Amino acid sequence: MSASISDTIHLMGRQARAAAYRLAQLDSEHKNTILHAMAAALRDASPALLAANALDMAAASASVKPLSAAMLDRLRLDEARIESMAAGIEQVATLADPVGQVIDAWQRPNGLNIQQVRVPIGTIGIIYESRPNVTADAAVLCFKTGNATILRGGSEAIHSNRAIAEVLQAGGAAAGLPEHAIQLIPFTDRESVAVLAQMDRWLDLIIPRGGKGLIETVVSLARMPVIKHYDGICHLFVDAAADAAMAVALTVDSKTQKCGVCNALETLLVHRDIAASFLPRVATALQAKHVELRGCAATRAVLADIAAATEDDWRSEYLDLILSIKVVDSLEAAVAHINEYGSHHTDCIVTADEAAAGRFLREVDSACVFHNVSTRFADGGEFGFGAEIGISTDKLHARGPMGLRELTSYQYRVRGNGQTKGVVEL
Amino acid sequence: MSASISDTIHLMGRQARAAAYRLAQLDSEHKNTILHAMAAALRDASPALLAANALDMAAASASVKPLSAAMLDRLRLDEARIESMAAGIEQVATLADPVGQVIDAWQRPNGLNIQQVRVPIGTIGIIYESRPNVTADAAVLCFKTGNATILRGGSEAIHSNRAIAEVLQAGGAAAGLPEHAIQLIPFTDRESVAVLAQMDRWLDLIIPRGGKGLIETVVSLARMPVIKHYDGICHLFVDAAADAAMAVALTVDSKTQKCGVCNALETLLVHRDIAASFLPRVATALQAKHVELRGCAATRAVLADIAAATEDDWRSEYLDLILSIKVVDSLEAAVAHINEYGSHHTDCIVTADEAAAGRFLREVDSACVFHNVSTRFADGGEFGFGAEIGISTDKLHARGPMGLRELTSYQYRVRGNGQTKGVVEL
Repeated sequence: MSASISDTIHLMGRQARAAAYRLAQLDSEHKNTILHAMAAALRDASPALLAANALDMAAASASVKPLSAAMLDRLRLDEARIESMAAGIEQVATLADPVGQVIDAWQRPNGLNIQQVRVPIGTIGIIYESRPNVTADAAVLCFKTGNATILRGGSEAIHSNRAIAEVLQAGGAAAGLPEHAIQLIPFTDRESVAVLAQMDRWLDLIIPRGGKGLIETVVSLARMPVIKHYDGICHLFVDAAADAAMAVALTVDSKTQKCGVCNALETLLVHRDIAASFLPRVATALQAKHVELRGCAATRAVLADIAAATEDDWRSEYLDLILSIKVVDSLEAAVAHINEYGSHHTDCIVTADEAAAGRFLREVDSACVFHNVSTRFADGGEFGFGAEIGISTDKLHARGPMGLRELTSYQYRVRGNGQTKGVVEL
Repeated sequence: MSASISDTIHLMGRQARAAAYRLAQLDSEHKNTILHAMAAALRDASPALLAANALDMAAASASVKPLSAAMLDRLRLDEARIESMAAGIEQVATLADPVGQVIDAWQRPNGLNIQQVRVPIGTIGIIYESRPNVTADAAVLCFKTGNATILRGGSEAIHSNRAIAEVLQAGGAAAGLPEHAIQLIPFTDRESVAVLAQMDRWLDLIIPRGGKGLIETVVSLARMPVIKHYDGICHLFVDAAADAAMAVALTVDSKTQKCGVCNALETLLVHRDIAASFLPRVATALQAKHVELRGCAATRAVLADIAAATEDDWRSEYLDLILSIKVVDSLEAAVAHINEYGSHHTDCIVTADEAAAGRFLREVDSACVFHNVSTRFADGGEFGFGAEIGISTDKLHARGPMGLRELTSYQYRVRGNGQTKGVVEL
């Protein structure tokens, strides 16, 4: 590794650790004042941010590897998006601060008073791709919870990311933001990811935000915990005792309300006892929304004109207007299919049978298990968290939608009056 | 990697995942019945366990790389240690089962009922060194919390580990333990560690239990979360407002009650305002317990006959009757020293000044922060957890002493009545 990149990032790590100790001591009111100052600074800097973004957009257009229209749209800033970033920061200021919360407290027979208290995690690395607004969103959620951040964005957004980070730093500093609380790595090559991921002395956590390739790379390299967001292969199981109209509505909403997102439906499972009547109804409703259907043999026995689903379909996160459909013999078969082929993100049962619903919720091994609810509600905002740093497909630390609480750790604070473990004779 | 080792371990992983789904559905009463059956089986198998252990002891004696006396002692089984393993299992049966506990529950304005419920993590790999009792201790704690385990012990204890695992499996099976709930890898080479650590499809968590070298290896290789237990470089800070007699007693207890453990004291920090009077008192008490003292210049200005502490001493976990001593100018200097040189395990302030204690507890970045308590109380048993799988030096998921609760994850169970995110017109 080149000395300069490694040295620079390690220095940023040491600085982040020092900043984290100062951040941990800020009270909520002061943090909120700083957040409002950052929001105001972003609004004031709108012309400079648009100018920086124009450089990224021009570079993207001139590139030998042109970005897709969707990627160009993600990269683009405009007045409305800058206002949305600023308003988002003000929204974070309104949220309750989890730091300092006493999670649990008890007294031991020997008189020790034990408190388990929420504290910041410390230092968090965020590695992300094209969207420049992540620079503000991620940094601000980490800051609200008393964590120092080291941001490493993609090369295509480097001018925008730098400009946003500088505005947050300068705007925050005027209100008392500790130096180095928010730092952006100036390098965009792959080596900087490797250096960051190996730097466990200075970094407590890495959160990669982007495609599977990025997450895989970080997972392979990282020496510290990584909170991952892999696929969302979500299922909806229409039980024999389902209200058919509700099941059609939930299927259509889960698949089509927004199809390019992780909590959209990818596979519909239908109990065989209801298949003959339900499949034509749901197919009509889905095809009216231009959804391509791919079915198992039993599905195609009812819906003759749809394509056959292959083994690959059951493992696919389409993120598109495509739905695979499988007829299953029982609740057990539905659960087994979901646990085998799903991504443990969000899965729903539609049924009027409370016992069946209870079994499904207990037996499906997913972050979110739903009964008679569209999968699209698997979201920090819909859960009432007020803000979301991501949706974890891990089982350790944070699972499912992550709010501010998931950006904290805890420590045990124990108060005594001289308790010794042995007898000390002096 | 050789196909046979990799294939065997991947098959064990797939089997563990299937077992985990069955384990998650066992109720607490059934799990406790199985635990009692395991304990009885261990007692009944005492002669076979001793015979297997004799093979390990003989191999250790005949080895070209002879084990130290301490390692031989850790490897040895006898009737008392087998009884202790069995009694430990019965103790785990008495503990409350965290699985199924509703951590939080709330209703959204749109009528969604959201529950956050504790569930097992799933599948856990345990990689450990010489002590064969870890085979039973770790497997049983994971089982009580509904997790399937894959155990990988050291070569020196392979006969003992196999015998213990077989007895747990057979004894448990008779009471309904699902097949493959507890599996022991039959290989003891390094390749098996690598295969296990890369197998993130089948393994949700790895817990290495052993020396720093083992933990470093697992951290470098692992693709799944690792709960780590690095050093315990614990500090005790004697504030200017300390009760000197209490400070002497806590120092002696923290250092000498048991010195080879992670929560033993390694560095004593003394406020300069109390150094001249306190240092001779504490030195006399420590030297009476045969503790070797190493001091900074200011310490040696008072205690002329002790050795000088070097930079290395501040970073050393002696695990021996050695103590480094530093005089500090202030509370801030004590906190800064601990955050810089400590291992974020357990640190204590001795003071009668509540404000100073409050600052210390808030500003020291360690899993356990104590006020007027011996560091030796940093322990799951002393915290009242009833059992301890280890002490985490991580900040994610589990920090400090880990009981049964730390072997669980959670899922969100959401109940509705047909809520859709958009308006669905059918």
